[in-house]
Amino acid sequence: MHLACFDLEGVFVPEIWIRFAEETGIPELRLTTRDVPDYDALMRRRIEILNRKGLRLPDIQAVIARMEPLPGAREFLDGLRRRIPVLIVSDTFSQFAGPLIAKLNHPTLLCNRLEIDPDGKVRGYRLRQPDGKRRVALAMQGLNYRVIAVGDSYNDLGMLTAADHGILFRPPDPVCREHPALPVAEDYAQLEGLIAGLLAPEER
Amino acid sequence: MHLACFDLEGVFVPEIWIRFAEETGIPELRLTTRDVPDYDALMRRRIEILNRKGLRLPDIQAVIARMEPLPGAREFLDGLRRRIPVLIVSDTFSQFAGPLIAKLNHPTLLCNRLEIDPDGKVRGYRLRQPDGKRRVALAMQGLNYRVIAVGDSYNDLGMLTAADHGILFRPPDPVCREHPALPVAEDYAQLEGLIAGLLAPEER
Repeated sequence: MHLACFDLEGVFVPEIWIRFAEETGIPELRLTTRDVPDYDALMRRRIEILNRKGLRLPDIQAVIARMEPLPGAREFLDGLRRRIPVLIVSDTFSQFAGPLIAKLNHPTLLCNRLEIDPDGKVRGYRLRQPDGKRRVALAMQGLNYRVIAVGDSYNDLGMLTAADHGILFRPPDPVCREHPALPVAEDYAQLEGLIAGLLAPEER
Repeated sequence: MHLACFDLEGVFVPEIWIRFAEETGIPELRLTTRDVPDYDALMRRRIEILNRKGLRLPDIQAVIARMEPLPGAREFLDGLRRRIPVLIVSDTFSQFAGPLIAKLNHPTLLCNRLEIDPDGKVRGYRLRQPDGKRRVALAMQGLNYRVIAVGDSYNDLGMLTAADHGILFRPPDPVCREHPALPVAEDYAQLEGLIAGLLAPEER
């Protein structure tokens, strides 16, 4: 029996912080771990910017609500969810992903959470656990699933290599070069084909 | 962070085998583990009946497609799925549950599978693992979730007692009496109230 774990950003929706920076016209929010390698320092910086700009959770969610999933994402997911269990496994925050997850027809999302004050101010964030994506793949294997994992970037590699079958989706060149053993899909039709080839007849 | 695990039959949909027996007019299919305590013997008997009656998977799914979730189930689930991750954890078979899961807007279902011949004949069944429901609750705790588990009968008790919060939903009297520590909900409004009382402000 198979179960599929998917990264969210870059696979089904745009990179949320980057699009959020564009939508709000706050270029500082485009900072990523390439600019500030320490994730905690980066998140504290982002939260400081949100608070300085007076952006509270409802404002942030209103901006994100104007974003759309990548074209074809929902149809791909709808089709696969009829056949095998699917989990979305992301390093994002549930309150950010919420509006986009709704547009994907509410697949189950395992991710992190922002801590929000009663007035909607972002107070901090909570990582569910270190190495969270890889741990999900291992936990599902512990439930006797053969795990198919799909992601696009460095933070997915723990999950992709722990899974029974890892697949890269539209990866940047360096990720691709460093992991030549992982099959690559450039669109949902290719991804669908790769996954269908792994399933048992009664799962297809 | 919380995650909720729900039993399916008796909580969101009718008991599938019993309704299936009624719909097909095959009373022998009403047999349960009360009549045949050995689950494997019971399942082999059920499969033998299906084959003897010439019922193949598409026929079975057509009958199940005429069933409906319990009134209010979808609305309750839709509301909770906006707030926390939800898993349906069932001892049923994915091919049986499929049409009902679709009517519940495709929540993630962890369950067992029937083995189907290419011509649609039910060949056998595969349990994902022994004690599967309880193992799901433990695996989710291993991912640092506080697990809320909801079920109605004996086969749910492993999951309910392993969870951080177990809740009985419309349980038969003996289950209720034997587990006085577990809170009981008799309808979705009560269940909603019990769960809301467990969530953090940012999850509500």
